[in-house]
Amino acid sequence: MRMGSESPLLTLDDVREAHRRIQDKIVRTPVLTSATLDASVRARLFFKCENFQKAGAFKARGATNAVFSLSDEQARRGVATHSSGNHGAALARAAALRQIRAVVVMPRDAARIKLESVERYGGTVLLCEPTLQSREETLQRVIAGSNAVMVHPYNDFRVMAGQGTVALELLEAVPDLDCILCPVGGGGLLSGVATAAKGVNPSIRVIGVEPAAADDAARSLRAGRIVTNADPATIADGLRANLGDRTFGQIRRTVDEIVTVTEGSIVAAMRRIWEVMKIVVEPSGAVPYAGAAEGKVDIAGKKVGIILTGGNVDLDFLPWLAQPPQ
Amino acid sequence: MRMGSESPLLTLDDVREAHRRIQDKIVRTPVLTSATLDASVRARLFFKCENFQKAGAFKARGATNAVFSLSDEQARRGVATHSSGNHGAALARAAALRQIRAVVVMPRDAARIKLESVERYGGTVLLCEPTLQSREETLQRVIAGSNAVMVHPYNDFRVMAGQGTVALELLEAVPDLDCILCPVGGGGLLSGVATAAKGVNPSIRVIGVEPAAADDAARSLRAGRIVTNADPATIADGLRANLGDRTFGQIRRTVDEIVTVTEGSIVAAMRRIWEVMKIVVEPSGAVPYAGAAEGKVDIAGKKVGIILTGGNVDLDFLPWLAQPPQ
Repeated sequence: MRMGSESPLLTLDDVREAHRRIQDKIVRTPVLTSATLDASVRARLFFKCENFQKAGAFKARGATNAVFSLSDEQARRGVATHSSGNHGAALARAAALRQIRAVVVMPRDAARIKLESVERYGGTVLLCEPTLQSREETLQRVIAGSNAVMVHPYNDFRVMAGQGTVALELLEAVPDLDCILCPVGGGGLLSGVATAAKGVNPSIRVIGVEPAAADDAARSLRAGRIVTNADPATIADGLRANLGDRTFGQIRRTVDEIVTVTEGSIVAAMRRIWEVMKIVVEPSGAVPYAGAAEGKVDIAGKKVGIILTGGNVDLDFLPWLAQPPQ
Repeated sequence: MRMGSESPLLTLDDVREAHRRIQDKIVRTPVLTSATLDASVRARLFFKCENFQKAGAFKARGATNAVFSLSDEQARRGVATHSSGNHGAALARAAALRQIRAVVVMPRDAARIKLESVERYGGTVLLCEPTLQSREETLQRVIAGSNAVMVHPYNDFRVMAGQGTVALELLEAVPDLDCILCPVGGGGLLSGVATAAKGVNPSIRVIGVEPAAADDAARSLRAGRIVTNADPATIADGLRANLGDRTFGQIRRTVDEIVTVTEGSIVAAMRRIWEVMKIVVEPSGAVPYAGAAEGKVDIAGKKVGIILTGGNVDLDFLPWLAQPPQ
């Protein structure tokens, strides 16, 4: 990292260093293609399948990089975070690999599968109210009490660098991509991906895709400052967070465009990926394909990388089924 | 093929020839592993993912081999079959590749997704009552009227040889397997897999797994003659068929054992594969893992190949959800 005029900026070298640090602790996930989906959107799509990542999501990358960046003294204090789920499980797993403690503050309405995941990796779950304010206050209390090192789910350069390794691997597999579609919630993934991709090839377009119901990133880029959503009602639970100062600063410098998609198109995209590709992706993971399918980005005839972020779904509550079972 | 004392027997050479014929027309599907599932069953499992096959199931192999084995004169007459779904779509696809006609007789209660699949590949669907008798009578009428070449879904050496190519690829990927678990319905896949696997390595154990509610193969092997189920009530719709004379003869000569699993264990296995491996498999495809998870086969410490046969599921009707939506 180097100091910029406004804030320190993440560089391609940081992402490469993160990849060297974590590559034997994560899965090099496959890149899948589908002739059927290509025909639907008249482009060539390359799906980077982070639903097959350890702990079921790309979050393993950033969390592992953060935990293995700690000094021995820091590591002894353990780590703590708040998370709607995937980052929590990923941090618990990384902490287990390093044999240190992890406390994860989670909202009461987080998916059961995500709570269980944290506990399966030996992490301690602390429940809070389902608001950003409650999350942050609860986490502050944990840290005040335990002196644990906070590993923020996205507004942390170690985490952003780790997430960017997705793009390094995608571009090694498909070097001549024209653009990459990447979901944006808190912006950790998008800032890492854009940093890595633009570093490798400055002519690649990097486009963030987010739910219209949680469009803080699009509005923030337009306003030139961070604009927030209060409690966004989107099914894409991994994308409800607002940008942080570090992710916003990085995204402003590296991302070409942010587009938004409707809730209906997210559910349709998720279902279509399951049905055609025979893989399980969570709603947040389907958002970039929704952007392509909805025609929100000009990809006709192009080679397009799509980050499928995760596959942690509560199989009892599928969003296209009108009523959940009693 | 050579003539045996009772019936012609399929050989490894037939399967190899089939593979040469079809390999550029099918997907060489990946072999996936899961540390979580390995720990559950205390064995090392290697999942051959035919859910990623063209038309969503291994059936593409046999159908393609059959269609491309036809003489030009035969091909001009078109092909016809009956199928609960996957073979129908596979035959329609193979026929489209060869630019000939395909008629598929399907039961009225076949999954919507399977009907649509046949039509998407340009096949003609003819609906019949959901009984084996109605299927066969309807197909006979089609053939009498059109002179089409019948490509039986399993009791056909060309189809059996094509299905066996799954095992060739699996053993190329993992040469030192101790055993292979394979579902058995009509027996086309199991006879091809056993023929190929035993041909490559006579010491591999090949075990058929079938629903207890459709246990005709287990009973037939015990009785030494074909014993049938009338209208078996199993969720594994791909495994409702009875053995044919050719598959039975081949299975008697090559398969070590047939075990049965309950309906509940099939649903649990299907759900577990989705949840842990993040892939979509249909109930029939989950049957071999159900056999492992239920402890029906002695695999402790062994390297076990598991054929995941297909991923064509109606996503509106998932069997672990108590009530389908209205």
